[in-house]
Amino acid sequence: MSGSTHGAAPPRLRADGVGFDELAQATRNHGMPLEALRYDVTPAGLHYLLIHYDVPFVDVTAWSLHLDGFDHPMTLSVDDLRARSQVTEAVTLECAGNGRAMFESRPVSQPWLLEAVGNAEWTGVPLASVLDEAGVPGDTVEILFTGLDRGVEGGLEQSYQRSLPLEEARRDGVLLAYEMNGQPLLPQHGAPLRLVVPGWYGMTHVKWLDRIEALDHPFQGYQHTAGYRLRSHPDDPGEPVTRILPRSLMVPPGVAGFPQRERHLAAGRVELEGRAWSGAAAIAQVEVSTDGGTTWIDAVVDPPAGPHAWQRWHLDWTATPGEHELACRATDATGERQPIEATSNIGGYANNSVHRVRVTVEDRNA
Amino acid sequence: MSGSTHGAAPPRLRADGVGFDELAQATRNHGMPLEALRYDVTPAGLHYLLIHYDVPFVDVTAWSLHLDGFDHPMTLSVDDLRARSQVTEAVTLECAGNGRAMFESRPVSQPWLLEAVGNAEWTGVPLASVLDEAGVPGDTVEILFTGLDRGVEGGLEQSYQRSLPLEEARRDGVLLAYEMNGQPLLPQHGAPLRLVVPGWYGMTHVKWLDRIEALDHPFQGYQHTAGYRLRSHPDDPGEPVTRILPRSLMVPPGVAGFPQRERHLAAGRVELEGRAWSGAAAIAQVEVSTDGGTTWIDAVVDPPAGPHAWQRWHLDWTATPGEHELACRATDATGERQPIEATSNIGGYANNSVHRVRVTVEDRNA
Repeated sequence: MSGSTHGAAPPRLRADGVGFDELAQATRNHGMPLEALRYDVTPAGLHYLLIHYDVPFVDVTAWSLHLDGFDHPMTLSVDDLRARSQVTEAVTLECAGNGRAMFESRPVSQPWLLEAVGNAEWTGVPLASVLDEAGVPGDTVEILFTGLDRGVEGGLEQSYQRSLPLEEARRDGVLLAYEMNGQPLLPQHGAPLRLVVPGWYGMTHVKWLDRIEALDHPFQGYQHTAGYRLRSHPDDPGEPVTRILPRSLMVPPGVAGFPQRERHLAAGRVELEGRAWSGAAAIAQVEVSTDGGTTWIDAVVDPPAGPHAWQRWHLDWTATPGEHELACRATDATGERQPIEATSNIGGYANNSVHRVRVTVEDRNA
Repeated sequence: MSGSTHGAAPPRLRADGVGFDELAQATRNHGMPLEALRYDVTPAGLHYLLIHYDVPFVDVTAWSLHLDGFDHPMTLSVDDLRARSQVTEAVTLECAGNGRAMFESRPVSQPWLLEAVGNAEWTGVPLASVLDEAGVPGDTVEILFTGLDRGVEGGLEQSYQRSLPLEEARRDGVLLAYEMNGQPLLPQHGAPLRLVVPGWYGMTHVKWLDRIEALDHPFQGYQHTAGYRLRSHPDDPGEPVTRILPRSLMVPPGVAGFPQRERHLAAGRVELEGRAWSGAAAIAQVEVSTDGGTTWIDAVVDPPAGPHAWQRWHLDWTATPGEHELACRATDATGERQPIEATSNIGGYANNSVHRVRVTVEDRNA
């Protein structure tokens, strides 16, 4: 999602103003309104969307997937893929740039606050079975995925491309998906076929798949060498962005103001609720604060619908009149906990700081 | 969509910076990416969305519509509505705030550039038939529609409410819609039932319908007296926002840059295309300029799919190397033409200035 090339600092913006170039992204991409955390499965159109270039206009009847560089190169139509054994799994997807706009400085890109997430049911063919059928050459180290979406980034016209190490590509749960929530993929979600890689940030889930290739060397494309790296300064080569860090989000309680979206709540008992997820492991704990982070209380965490789906959490709270700052933070089974404040990085990636929600509680019986 | 009350000037922002309160709207509401102008019918999830408060969490099985103030008050379930004779019609919807961010100054609200539009197929019951069944009292002047969405606006906690003059409510094409594009309404589009009023800006198409009432007086609610008025200064009572002004938009040709979304195009023949619509009448003419508006050429305008649907336009252009500013403007059958620059107003409504697209054309055979 970075617009920078390694070695060249991207433009920086102050946190109290958003540029028109950022606005051009924000009015076409969109997040999941946080009240939609209530749905186990995110309805179509509420799932977050981040599209680097344009949504390509694909003739699904003429489309085919090309597998190149394998022992048995193949070309597969949608019908060919549907004729193979299919699986359906709930997968929580999050954009690597979620939280970017909440860093004190950030590059020009999609200015996400907190909404770049969704949990959908994806149906498709396990990638491992297609790789086995095509025959992976013995010297293969990575599998490269190329989408039909083309654009200009870092001065280069390019197709969107991402690779995966072979062992990641072979993992259980990695899908070539042709359905979302029981319906054929919508154009903006990669129709007719996309990659789904549970646990990894969204940049890996290549949409509008055109070509899958076996590589005997690590891929050095733009989205690996310039974009999607955690770099502390412009000359830092950095580490690649990979798996989703733990995060919890809260359904903002009460009702919203328009246009500022401040929250208004009646005094009394309220069930605080939300979702938590991590790309590394199950969620072990969600803590909630009702005093701005001074004290924390364990919420109840429900089991997930599947190994790659977010988990619901909830906690009863008796809201007293006045102003309150609510917060939540998750810890996953590896012991990784959301930070109070995440360390910023050049690309504005992986800001999983605790979620804070200010509420005004009114005594309506007074 | 205005956050102001009549008599109080809303906060104004400079056009070169967007506030975080505006960003909070922009990351949850979303426009239709302009490349989706290619689809006759806008796919789910690409249609624009503007939601004042939160998407309400509605139990569709327990929901019913209440008709009050009629000769025969009624309560109707979704099944009751589906048992009545249904119609399907393509309707172009546009937000009254589309173009707001392109005014030199604007109120804090949803900072739309140009994408707040969509053309969907809506299925439901003609409102007139339900009004006839309920029996409209002889002294009725307006029909009031109340949604289940609640929030705080102008210091008032309120349900979203809009009324229509009786003769507008009775018009052909006005629907109580329970399907969009052949599927039950999605939560964010007003499930299980919304109003569709062809030709009117989006604020009229009340979502999550709870109650319909016959009124013997004009409704004086917030969305009529404070919001959705064309006011030239804070003390101007202004005129109500009603029907959609003529507009044309263009599919930006070539490929997009990321993140700035500048356009890159190969020299040679290219088909410029887009859509045009007006809430008052059919489109009579679409003109295209390839020199920033100095000269204009008539595009071919296709007939609409129905009386309330947008119309495709197209024009062949031979792109020569260099920088070009493309533009398009529509004129409807009443003679109303899009202005080069629209007159701004306090609420930032109805900015239907001509659409301009800058492109860089490269000679790839050189």
